[in-house]
Amino acid sequence: MKNTFGASVAVTLFGESHGDYIGATIDGLAPGIEIDHEYISRMLTLRRPAGRISTSRKEKDEYKIVSGVFNGRTAGTPITILIPNENVKSGDYAKMQTVARPSHADYTAECKYHGFQDTRGGGHFSGRITAALVAAGAVCKYALELKGICIGTHVKKCAGIADRDFSDLASDIGEVNEKLFAVLDEASGVKMQGAILAAVSEGDSVGGILETAVIGMPEGVGEPWFDTVEGMLAHMMFSIPAVKGIEFGAGFAIADMRGSTANDPFRMKSGKVVSVSNNNGGINGGITNGMPVIFRTAIKPTPTIFRQQDTIDFGSMSDAVLVPVGRHDPAIVHRARVVQDAATAIVLCDALALRYGTDWLR
Amino acid sequence: MKNTFGASVAVTLFGESHGDYIGATIDGLAPGIEIDHEYISRMLTLRRPAGRISTSRKEKDEYKIVSGVFNGRTAGTPITILIPNENVKSGDYAKMQTVARPSHADYTAECKYHGFQDTRGGGHFSGRITAALVAAGAVCKYALELKGICIGTHVKKCAGIADRDFSDLASDIGEVNEKLFAVLDEASGVKMQGAILAAVSEGDSVGGILETAVIGMPEGVGEPWFDTVEGMLAHMMFSIPAVKGIEFGAGFAIADMRGSTANDPFRMKSGKVVSVSNNNGGINGGITNGMPVIFRTAIKPTPTIFRQQDTIDFGSMSDAVLVPVGRHDPAIVHRARVVQDAATAIVLCDALALRYGTDWLR
Amino acid sequence: MKNTFGASVAVTLFGESHGDYIGATIDGLAPGIEIDHEYISRMLTLRRPAGRISTSRKEKDEYKIVSGVFNGRTAGTPITILIPNENVKSGDYAKMQTVARPSHADYTAECKYHGFQDTRGGGHFSGRITAALVAAGAVCKYALELKGICIGTHVKKCAGIADRDFSDLASDIGEVNEKLFAVLDEASGVKMQGAILAAVSEGDSVGGILETAVIGMPEGVGEPWFDTVEGMLAHMMFSIPAVKGIEFGAGFAIADMRGSTANDPFRMKSGKVVSVSNNNGGINGGITNGMPVIFRTAIKPTPTIFRQQDTIDFGSMSDAVLVPVGRHDPAIVHRARVVQDAATAIVLCDALALRYGTDWLR
Amino acid sequence: MKNTFGASVAVTLFGESHGDYIGATIDGLAPGIEIDHEYISRMLTLRRPAGRISTSRKEKDEYKIVSGVFNGRTAGTPITILIPNENVKSGDYAKMQTVARPSHADYTAECKYHGFQDTRGGGHFSGRITAALVAAGAVCKYALELKGICIGTHVKKCAGIADRDFSDLASDIGEVNEKLFAVLDEASGVKMQGAILAAVSEGDSVGGILETAVIGMPEGVGEPWFDTVEGMLAHMMFSIPAVKGIEFGAGFAIADMRGSTANDPFRMKSGKVVSVSNNNGGINGGITNGMPVIFRTAIKPTPTIFRQQDTIDFGSMSDAVLVPVGRHDPAIVHRARVVQDAATAIVLCDALALRYGTDWLR
Repeated sequence: MKNTFGASVAVTLFGESHGDYIGATIDGLAPGIEIDHEYISRMLTLRRPAGRISTSRKEKDEYKIVSGVFNGRTAGTPITILIPNENVKSGDYAKMQTVARPSHADYTAECKYHGFQDTRGGGHFSGRITAALVAAGAVCKYALELKGICIGTHVKKCAGIADRDFSDLASDIGEVNEKLFAVLDEASGVKMQGAILAAVSEGDSVGGILETAVIGMPEGVGEPWFDTVEGMLAHMMFSIPAVKGIEFGAGFAIADMRGSTANDPFRMKSGKVVSVSNNNGGINGGITNGMPVIFRTAIKPTPTIFRQQDTIDFGSMSDAVLVPVGRHDPAIVHRARVVQDAATAIVLCDALALRYGTDWLR
Repeated sequence: MKNTFGASVAVTLFGESHGDYIGATIDGLAPGIEIDHEYISRMLTLRRPAGRISTSRKEKDEYKIVSGVFNGRTAGTPITILIPNENVKSGDYAKMQTVARPSHADYTAECKYHGFQDTRGGGHFSGRITAALVAAGAVCKYALELKGICIGTHVKKCAGIADRDFSDLASDIGEVNEKLFAVLDEASGVKMQGAILAAVSEGDSVGGILETAVIGMPEGVGEPWFDTVEGMLAHMMFSIPAVKGIEFGAGFAIADMRGSTANDPFRMKSGKVVSVSNNNGGINGGITNGMPVIFRTAIKPTPTIFRQQDTIDFGSMSDAVLVPVGRHDPAIVHRARVVQDAATAIVLCDALALRYGTDWLR
Repeated sequence: MKNTFGASVAVTLFGESHGDYIGATIDGLAPGIEIDHEYISRMLTLRRPAGRISTSRKEKDEYKIVSGVFNGRTAGTPITILIPNENVKSGDYAKMQTVARPSHADYTAECKYHGFQDTRGGGHFSGRITAALVAAGAVCKYALELKGICIGTHVKKCAGIADRDFSDLASDIGEVNEKLFAVLDEASGVKMQGAILAAVSEGDSVGGILETAVIGMPEGVGEPWFDTVEGMLAHMMFSIPAVKGIEFGAGFAIADMRGSTANDPFRMKSGKVVSVSNNNGGINGGITNGMPVIFRTAIKPTPTIFRQQDTIDFGSMSDAVLVPVGRHDPAIVHRARVVQDAATAIVLCDALALRYGTDWLR
Repeated sequence: MKNTFGASVAVTLFGESHGDYIGATIDGLAPGIEIDHEYISRMLTLRRPAGRISTSRKEKDEYKIVSGVFNGRTAGTPITILIPNENVKSGDYAKMQTVARPSHADYTAECKYHGFQDTRGGGHFSGRITAALVAAGAVCKYALELKGICIGTHVKKCAGIADRDFSDLASDIGEVNEKLFAVLDEASGVKMQGAILAAVSEGDSVGGILETAVIGMPEGVGEPWFDTVEGMLAHMMFSIPAVKGIEFGAGFAIADMRGSTANDPFRMKSGKVVSVSNNNGGINGGITNGMPVIFRTAIKPTPTIFRQQDTIDFGSMSDAVLVPVGRHDPAIVHRARVVQDAATAIVLCDALALRYGTDWLR
């Protein structure tokens, strides 16, 4: 439902880039879960622009939890997190209001909101709103960790340069969760950042692929039709601005395999069912099978580039040329990774609460 | 919500492979829409197994609409479609009940349903259930066509062999909708079918990629957060058994592009806003921009193969070997394509009814 | 959502009075629950018209469960129940199609469905549809009984004649669940039936009040805002045709009380918290407190009477006179009582599954 | 869904009585609707305690809209309204934490939240939260007025003293919307306030009945099953703390009528369908018929009284005695009336947006 996602644990998002606050409300989270402010702050820091590979907008993201937390723990009631918008320079964007930035939501916002949308800095479509999603997801992600469910995302690819694959998941997840530029292979990370800077120097931008792993998910969660774990995660992930694709397990590569290769043989291991390979990404028939949940998203290059672009002016409904100004990211893949972690955590909390009840995460 | 999908137009699925009926209920569809039985039958035929590249199970799919249609038109009330199960040979599957078929839902069904699931022929997880989804989607797809919104899907890839790209969408959609094996390039289709038969002869199976195009969607439909058009379509598509990935527009390939290439410049054309390229698949910021909606799904090779496979017996919780018997498809990509059409139609009817009200499709 | 109710356990209704089938799909019910066909049949019998105090339409209600039940128990998948329509005499109603029966849904159906609604026998608005609701609710009610949660409803008032109050709930519930005309005091029941027959003889109809009690509900179920137990039950009860009001505990009478009388003092009793009075009907702040849940609904007199009535013809949009024909009930309060039981069971199963997870009812 | 209500226009509530903020997010409201701050403030003033008949807690309710409004109009995106909590005296309540106030939610909150709930001032259960509901509802109510749909509520009964009935609805609605103590007959209002003061002097509290009228609703809105207009309104109204019953049109009195009296004969009047009486409260078969929507709620006497009461201590699970302290209302019926207006407006905006699309309220 629009700006609310989830059936048992639900997150509502609100705010515009240059409004007073952006924020999120988490409803339905079990009572008694510890709130770790350092954990939330660290996740917000990972999303924040940093250095020359990001926008020069300074975002402090000094969030405040204004409801639903009592004596440092969730009260079981809606948790509203507010993040004030600071350092907003609306003037930078003033001229753009009816000249649609290609591949941005300017024109579609006009179609939907008929000129009443807040166009300053992307308004409600701004990537800035993901800070609220991250804060909400951080609460959920920490709650999952207390139950032994860990989530980590790395930049699998950026500007055509690949990171190494996940290997030891527990250790790899721990590692990427500590990194600002989340790669498993540092050398690849250096190359990626070089490629981002090269794009900057040409007034251009780059995209990439994010890969997420979840370990510790109990088996038997999800539904065979409609509310498959894949479907719920996919539904949510396309809310991360710039995501244009998602694949689970072997993903699109599975299309070229034969069944004899693609199938994941089951085996018993220490009394637990495991599969020898994980081409299905931990999900069979929409339901978790106890293996790690693995998925990747395609992140498009930031649509704002420092080049002149053909476009239209939807005020006059005529052809126009866009000469961009303002602050923007030459790549967001490295920042989006923590949004993906957060979004994943929200979906899994919902699926688990539906399966096991509203007290399970306690 | 589980077996119901949609907020304004909602479809509920029910049934097991070897039960009395499978079926679907469509709720919320506008009154007064013509029901074209030939259209529904044709879509059901396209899903049905045919020839040596499919299972030898004979399915007549003689559906019956038992509510919600009056004098040949939708009454505005829930439309329930029943499809009796015939030609069921439960005996074929009887031995498999606790030996999990790898990459099937047997084990996850056990985790979720604790031994009470109907295991005959895949039960509620069977691809057979998609016949009900197709019937429901056929009603929706026809309703959309009456409003000028046309959907078509082709087998973009099968067993590693590629079809040509969509070019003239209106004509290509018309063409693939008439074909049993939906390719744009007949020669490629012949090769694909050869590859399927080659896999059959080796007791193996193949996968592929399905590409869907939608033309005529009004601009301004969808939401910026959560109920993005991508998110809603993706949520639904993962209910098609075997789908392991979805991508919109340029999809995963966009990850390697630069912004200057990936961006879709807008232009005015005959008073209408169009984009010169369509790397975003007709969606910006989660909202349709009036360009064709384009997406692809990855279809895994059928997990049932005629080879011995390692697995576990979840009855005894011990290692086991699976020697498959019964009737199965060496590929389902060519049959799944009409399921994808149907599933797309359902999602779009819901999105349109939410946007324009419950009478709009009339 | 329209014809689907519930978030974790959801029921979808479909059908028209003179269509092929009416039916219901129950989704989300735990696997492994025994299906007691005698129990379902008995509840359907209690709803069925009987004797001179009911319509002469004969309804056999030979339901069939076509999905979701395997080896006599719920499989955990959607349970679809079909009830064929027999003994339909569409001709009886043919003349009424554009002359709106006052206080029926004929005119509002026209406003909503623009002439495409099935008008035969009330179509989708017919009380007949409640047979499907009863069948679905019977499955849920039996599941609750297995967990010690019992529901019973009596005709608290009919044609102005009152039944005695509930006293020993466990015994009273057992008693009314066995009765065709559910009163606690037989003498009152005889008077009520006499009053119904008196109304019949004058071509008129009567209404009444139904009182429902639920014992065994665990404390702590429900939500403080929006999904209060009262709100969810009330939402559902207004789907019982003819219900025009609902009240919990002391209900409207509480409006005239003072706090010192209205308050329910808590006491410990055998280690359990109880309240000395139960003016709040077992619910405080929207959440069950472990005391019996008690509510009453107001049932209006059947709108179809055998008298000439002023009305309009919505075909010609002109004043008209209605001379009713056909079969109808002079009262439905005694039949609606089992619908209320069923509807209550559905809501409670949903609330419990949300609270304790999808396996709890097992 | 818990703290979110609505499918197309949805309101999410959050906050605790003594937390930083209470607030509400309105999602899905059409773009371009004027925000009238005076209108919102006036509604908040009507809810605010005043004089000796209310609590002495001073609430300024200086709300702030922090998102979704741009240039004085709705942007179409989520509108979040924050109201800071001031004048909070947590100390007053400190001793009460485990001694359950009878007929309050203290004990049920403990059952649900296991001791993690914020107990200060009623926490999330506090009537204070309704200020956020009023602010959100004020935005919706004003939007409806711009479309000619007007809502008004009067104190139909308080402490056993009745107000006169609604007569000329347009004028009566206008009148009560201006009044702090909303009665149609001033003399009755004076008596009611006298009765409230009499209760105060005895350390007691009183209840009452609220009657709401809505004029201007288009015909054809609502659903026959589950999402009946009555069901949706009832669902919402039970979120107003203290509501224990709701009835539409003639309500419970209809139970004693015969059909010949209860039925509302239709007539044509100036080309429009009207009914001569309105015992059905403007709703037939769950769908509006164009007549005024009329309903009444039963408001229980404030459970907090200044008398010693028997109760339990849920900390020690033992009998206890409650000696109340702090600030409380001897009656809330006169304050709840504006909450009822607000709650009604939210439900109707949702029903209208579902029926006519997301732009209709523009």
